[in-house]
Amino acid sequence: MLVREIGEFGLINRISAMLPEQSAGVIKGIGDDVAVLDTSGPEYLLATCDIQVEGVHFMRDAITPYQLGRRVAAINLSDIAAMGGDPRWALVSLAIPGDVEVGYVEELYRGMREQMALAGASIAGGNLSRMKSIIVLDFTLLGLVAPDRIILRSTAGVGDAILMTGSPGESRAGLELIRRPDLAVSSSARQRLIERHLCPQPRLAEGRLLARSGLVTSMIDVSDGVIGDLLHICESSGKGAEIEAAGLWISPDLGEAALAAAADSLEWALSGGEDYELMFTAAPEAVPDLQKMLIDQTGTSCAQIGRITAGTEVSLRFADGTRVVPAAKGWDHFGG
Amino acid sequence: MLVREIGEFGLINRISAMLPEQSAGVIKGIGDDVAVLDTSGPEYLLATCDIQVEGVHFMRDAITPYQLGRRVAAINLSDIAAMGGDPRWALVSLAIPGDVEVGYVEELYRGMREQMALAGASIAGGNLSRMKSIIVLDFTLLGLVAPDRIILRSTAGVGDAILMTGSPGESRAGLELIRRPDLAVSSSARQRLIERHLCPQPRLAEGRLLARSGLVTSMIDVSDGVIGDLLHICESSGKGAEIEAAGLWISPDLGEAALAAAADSLEWALSGGEDYELMFTAAPEAVPDLQKMLIDQTGTSCAQIGRITAGTEVSLRFADGTRVVPAAKGWDHFGG
Repeated sequence: MLVREIGEFGLINRISAMLPEQSAGVIKGIGDDVAVLDTSGPEYLLATCDIQVEGVHFMRDAITPYQLGRRVAAINLSDIAAMGGDPRWALVSLAIPGDVEVGYVEELYRGMREQMALAGASIAGGNLSRMKSIIVLDFTLLGLVAPDRIILRSTAGVGDAILMTGSPGESRAGLELIRRPDLAVSSSARQRLIERHLCPQPRLAEGRLLARSGLVTSMIDVSDGVIGDLLHICESSGKGAEIEAAGLWISPDLGEAALAAAADSLEWALSGGEDYELMFTAAPEAVPDLQKMLIDQTGTSCAQIGRITAGTEVSLRFADGTRVVPAAKGWDHFGG
Repeated sequence: MLVREIGEFGLINRISAMLPEQSAGVIKGIGDDVAVLDTSGPEYLLATCDIQVEGVHFMRDAITPYQLGRRVAAINLSDIAAMGGDPRWALVSLAIPGDVEVGYVEELYRGMREQMALAGASIAGGNLSRMKSIIVLDFTLLGLVAPDRIILRSTAGVGDAILMTGSPGESRAGLELIRRPDLAVSSSARQRLIERHLCPQPRLAEGRLLARSGLVTSMIDVSDGVIGDLLHICESSGKGAEIEAAGLWISPDLGEAALAAAADSLEWALSGGEDYELMFTAAPEAVPDLQKMLIDQTGTSCAQIGRITAGTEVSLRFADGTRVVPAAKGWDHFGG
């Protein structure tokens, strides 16, 4: 049997089954985006990593090294944000061909350094290695969180409202505009959507605020798409969910790009992925307080996009009452 | 200017110069193999990583996935051993083509799991990604060490004896035997040397014992070769060194393999690299106690191979009194 036949999540399940269920000091291990570790210190240690492979995750001619550095740091910072944690230190493993310009590497590190500095964190170590023709960058991020403030994906309750910051699908639209420079969209929309794809902004202040509010029952960052990550919450929590199509905020820029590409803006919003927004759950009566708190203290709005149900199914309900179970399950890294 | 023109260590210097000299909680950062971090807990956090690229660091047909898993874990465990630390948790980033057998991935994880379990440590997380044709494996290892027991590479003193566990050069000999299966050596030597290359044994018990003895002034693990890693100690400590050629233990197996390959066994011992033995310094009067303690408590012997000098030069002295400054500076990952 080949890796591509069982896919990314099938492979994760096989690997998880081989490893001990409990290991010393491991609060959350394989299967979550972030490992939660007990170092016997006052806070839990958070550890996450993300690998960027040229030709798979990025094209060298479509993103500057500075942007790539910003982006890989932001992707990892977003994972720490979703736990309500404080990012602290990164290790960078870079495998690079010898014929790359030194200036390229310096720009890459400048991007990582600046994105980390914005989050009050720094690059503390790593590893350099030779590669034959492509660039591979693995970024490991360590953070800290107080044990009583950590928010997991596995603790959503039936009846909870599902909320989400920002407007999903814009990163997917930005990717389409990079791939198809001929698409007829306004230059302002083009620029903003491409920026959303290349330089996502991790929601660190929002994550910390939500974690400290005591009102949030589960949280995840949206990297695999709204449906994909909602499925992660539902599978971990042993619950189902119903998304209200009308609750998703389709931005005017996203609508414009989808129209030009003859694509379905709702599908991009639901399954596009790489939004790096926060999706979280809370009791319905807490929703107005959470929305007000977020907008007042961070300037970020959040919308209710559905609710957690009993069962295990994630369904989509339209304004006219029709209900479908979407097939798109978000990004599977071996599926594409 | 291209990456290969300034080499691995030139590039590390350029990157170090771009990053802040001091960052919150970073006791030792870029430039050492292991980052030392202060989490406000009772122990310092140690963090290191090593990337293995198919075709650069390993050949898929020359090492089994189980051996590769053992090896990548061992390489990282060796770095923690050299700090006197306790390894705890690993994150594994694996980028793999879709046409690899699932069984290959399972064997890889079995190797990592078993090597980690031998060290009382576990795999706590990571990341899976698609790759086009080759396998890339990045292994990040976290450990802990009491602040008063940590041993750095930067604290060797003039007049200190230089000691080393085991017999250097055997890993290099094993690599030669893998590359040239036709070489006429005994099957016992072949098997042991290849094993030394494919499955190095991290010197964890030895590292902890040495760190706790209070007698060791600096320590490093030998991955870049005896001369290469002694240069790391000397550069970090602002010192020089003299190696006694007669002090290096050339094992009979190494001698046999070098003879068959028409290679210089001393050169393999000095510059071969990937030995994953411990090199450390101590006051000359402490040498007998350290040697007895190591052999009594771990069964591992260590030999005095030279001494730390004033100045910055690393030289080699032969039994007849002649003295040379070796050109071989160990592994530069962009040099090969």
